[in-house]
Amino acid sequence: MAHAEKITPRSQDFSEWYNDVIMQAQLADYSPVRGCMVIRPLGYRIWELMQRALDDMFKATGHQNAYFPLFIPESFLAKEAEHVEGFAKEVAVVTHTRLRATGKAGAAAVEPDPASELEEPLVVRPTSETIIYAMFAKWIQSYRDLPLLMNQWCNIVRWELRTRLFLRTTEFLWQEGHTAHATEADAEAEARQMLGVYRQFQEEWVAMPVLTGRKTESEKFAGALRTYAVEALMQDNKALQAGTSHNLGQNFARAFNVQYQTAAGGLDFVWNTSWGVSTRMIGGLIMTHSDDNGLVAPPRLAPIQVVIVPIWKNDEERGQVSGVGGQVKDALAKAGVRVEMDLRDLKPGAKYFDWEAKGVPLRLEVGPRDVAAGQVMAARRVKPAAGGKAPLALADVAAAVPKLLDEIQRELFEAAKARREANSIRGVTRTQFLEFMNGPGGFAYGGFCGSGDCEAQIKTETAATIRVLPDPEFQSPEQPRTCMWCGKPSVAEAVWAQAY
Amino acid sequence: MAHAEKITPRSQDFSEWYNDVIMQAQLADYSPVRGCMVIRPLGYRIWELMQRALDDMFKATGHQNAYFPLFIPESFLAKEAEHVEGFAKEVAVVTHTRLRATGKAGAAAVEPDPASELEEPLVVRPTSETIIYAMFAKWIQSYRDLPLLMNQWCNIVRWELRTRLFLRTTEFLWQEGHTAHATEADAEAEARQMLGVYRQFQEEWVAMPVLTGRKTESEKFAGALRTYAVEALMQDNKALQAGTSHNLGQNFARAFNVQYQTAAGGLDFVWNTSWGVSTRMIGGLIMTHSDDNGLVAPPRLAPIQVVIVPIWKNDEERGQVSGVGGQVKDALAKAGVRVEMDLRDLKPGAKYFDWEAKGVPLRLEVGPRDVAAGQVMAARRVKPAAGGKAPLALADVAAAVPKLLDEIQRELFEAAKARREANSIRGVTRTQFLEFMNGPGGFAYGGFCGSGDCEAQIKTETAATIRVLPDPEFQSPEQPRTCMWCGKPSVAEAVWAQAY
Repeated sequence: MAHAEKITPRSQDFSEWYNDVIMQAQLADYSPVRGCMVIRPLGYRIWELMQRALDDMFKATGHQNAYFPLFIPESFLAKEAEHVEGFAKEVAVVTHTRLRATGKAGAAAVEPDPASELEEPLVVRPTSETIIYAMFAKWIQSYRDLPLLMNQWCNIVRWELRTRLFLRTTEFLWQEGHTAHATEADAEAEARQMLGVYRQFQEEWVAMPVLTGRKTESEKFAGALRTYAVEALMQDNKALQAGTSHNLGQNFARAFNVQYQTAAGGLDFVWNTSWGVSTRMIGGLIMTHSDDNGLVAPPRLAPIQVVIVPIWKNDEERGQVSGVGGQVKDALAKAGVRVEMDLRDLKPGAKYFDWEAKGVPLRLEVGPRDVAAGQVMAARRVKPAAGGKAPLALADVAAAVPKLLDEIQRELFEAAKARREANSIRGVTRTQFLEFMNGPGGFAYGGFCGSGDCEAQIKTETAATIRVLPDPEFQSPEQPRTCMWCGKPSVAEAVWAQAY
Repeated sequence: MAHAEKITPRSQDFSEWYNDVIMQAQLADYSPVRGCMVIRPLGYRIWELMQRALDDMFKATGHQNAYFPLFIPESFLAKEAEHVEGFAKEVAVVTHTRLRATGKAGAAAVEPDPASELEEPLVVRPTSETIIYAMFAKWIQSYRDLPLLMNQWCNIVRWELRTRLFLRTTEFLWQEGHTAHATEADAEAEARQMLGVYRQFQEEWVAMPVLTGRKTESEKFAGALRTYAVEALMQDNKALQAGTSHNLGQNFARAFNVQYQTAAGGLDFVWNTSWGVSTRMIGGLIMTHSDDNGLVAPPRLAPIQVVIVPIWKNDEERGQVSGVGGQVKDALAKAGVRVEMDLRDLKPGAKYFDWEAKGVPLRLEVGPRDVAAGQVMAARRVKPAAGGKAPLALADVAAAVPKLLDEIQRELFEAAKARREANSIRGVTRTQFLEFMNGPGGFAYGGFCGSGDCEAQIKTETAATIRVLPDPEFQSPEQPRTCMWCGKPSVAEAVWAQAY
């Protein structure tokens, strides 16, 4: 597991840089299965930390986890017209349940057994609205059973032609919340609440600032009444949709006959929401913070938050510095810090290089002179604007490090937010918009007439799409009066960007 | 979500009883997809608690989690001869990647698009040896990369004709550990170590006593050198295989060319192990402890460990008892107990019935007289041999309840162990064996000649199979000299049972 390869600089080729960061940090790898990735231990640990934090937030808002089948009968998908239209082109279809020997050698030794062909093919879930609401129809009888607030953590398959590690893979891991409510207002409040949970998580844990808002008709989820999204700006000025929350109205309730007896004794269809975030967020984390030395992980999601690197020239020194390093490690572990000590027989420089590539936020160096001075030297993964390494007194380490990690977390968020704002323009004209999208790119705020034709033209000419119609707190102080593209009256401010 | 249905008594129909317990407790439900189940929140919470405990044990023994693709090219499965033989008859095969509209109405509205047929079909993983060792071949170069100790939590699909909730379903959830070692001894030690982890978990968490031992050739995993298993005895005297651990030898390393440079500079194949436990354990938990009133959950895996039921006749009393109940709840939650208070407008008896069906180990009743006496009444889900409800002084609750839960956990294990021993016979003759297997059934210990023919005959005549060749600590004090079936010399003591 050598680390000799170099990381392509961001400025030279962002896409190569992204892949190199992932490979060098051993976050993921390509698999022999087209479009499917392997999530390696360091990448998977980030996902586990994300899961833990989100799961706590879901449970705190009253949701319970459950697990629904991987397979969905193809006829279920067909029950909601827009839904099948949206997913039919990208589903893996199971048609047989046995293999048989062909008598040939090598790769052709087996084939699907024709005698095992299914009467009704099954699709591997591209999302689970249909199978889940079929179960809701069985469980919900009366208004007393509402709201029903569920979530599942699972794998999803969407057959993708062009894939990128974490960002777009045929199989990915996600959570999907599914809820049923008695009224449209309740469903709307739930969809908005979970959008807020996503924003809080992205900002406070991923240290990734996001815009929240509503998707236009052409960008909404297949089968939804309204789709809300959180959108972040990557370092190449492309937008990443990092989570969506849908008010599904009564569309699926009608398709799957999910009815309930109202308090007044009548019968009505429930109102559903669904909402999801996926391993794609790991791609967002990487592209928001990392640099030419490799991964930069925000402390709250860093698998290893602190690495202790003892420095020695001989065995006596080794004993001394690793002894003190061990004490520091124990003290930090006791304070709840995820900490490792690196005692490999490598030069310190090689170790720094390795842990920087893996994104460890804070390195503590312990040399003989540090031991004598009763201190360690703290080096941040991302150098602060002023100063480099700083000494930390041994007696203070356990108290100082958690504070330092909080500070690093905050600074990463602030830096990402400043970068986003520096790469946003507001009140664009058509000319400015074209210049911006053909030039540096970023978030462009402007008036929008509400027409799908304008959206389509803009997409053709610039590859930019409306990421959101932003929520009030992200709207420009002066609201645009006309569509920046066609000049007709504006119905809402929109934020455009080229996107992943 | 009514609870009016009755649970069929165990003595009347064990299989019906099992299903009724699951339905009444809302642990799982049947899905519209043949052979696939839905794990409902209470059942899934048990799985989450199992996962958390096992995952901690895996990490403490040096394993890291990762995630590998759901799909496996059919040619991969074919690379290990016994492996494909073992799984070819039960795999879901993906052959297409798009659906197209047929123009017909209803269920026939879509079909697999012939233009999207895959060149090489993919199987949905029935287990992941092949895809994982293909990656190991990429990652392992030298002895320094060994041992490689990985685990994944995921879903698995095996096309089953006869399915039972939790015990045998087309899709299930599990963990699969996969490791690579430099020597056979290291692999053997790993396979044995993880068998020990499973035993510890089953005994200390599930409160389910298990036998450990080796499987015979005819019962071992397809592609393994040796298979070890943990086996438990259910209340109907049928055995449940609750986990397996395989020493895979170099079989998969040869098939996938997983070679490493030895310390001496040579080249050798690695030695692999794999080991897994699944949601099947939830079935084991149910069938080990539950009774005619519903689920009995061991405290360490009970989603709700304590339910507080305030009892009132009027609003004044309600305020009083729910106030005290709330204080008890807070104190217990602070002590780390999973506790709920039931303030529904139902009669106390209906609440008791409900929480008993759901398996809550301990109920605390708080009536006005209890408040006056400064106490609550503690009622155990499983009544102790002597006595029924017992008062607990309010001041002691937070200290007494965790101790009581530990005691309940221990008693459940002891009771299950006593039941298992009461339903085991040692040193059986052929006549006793037939009488036992045609009668009450259970674990029968006897001599075994090592012949697959004897195993096959016994299976045909009694449906019993060798569950394990038991490890020394489970062997009878006097080792049998002859095969209990054919009379030839015994090569090992064996334990037979009819099994799930």
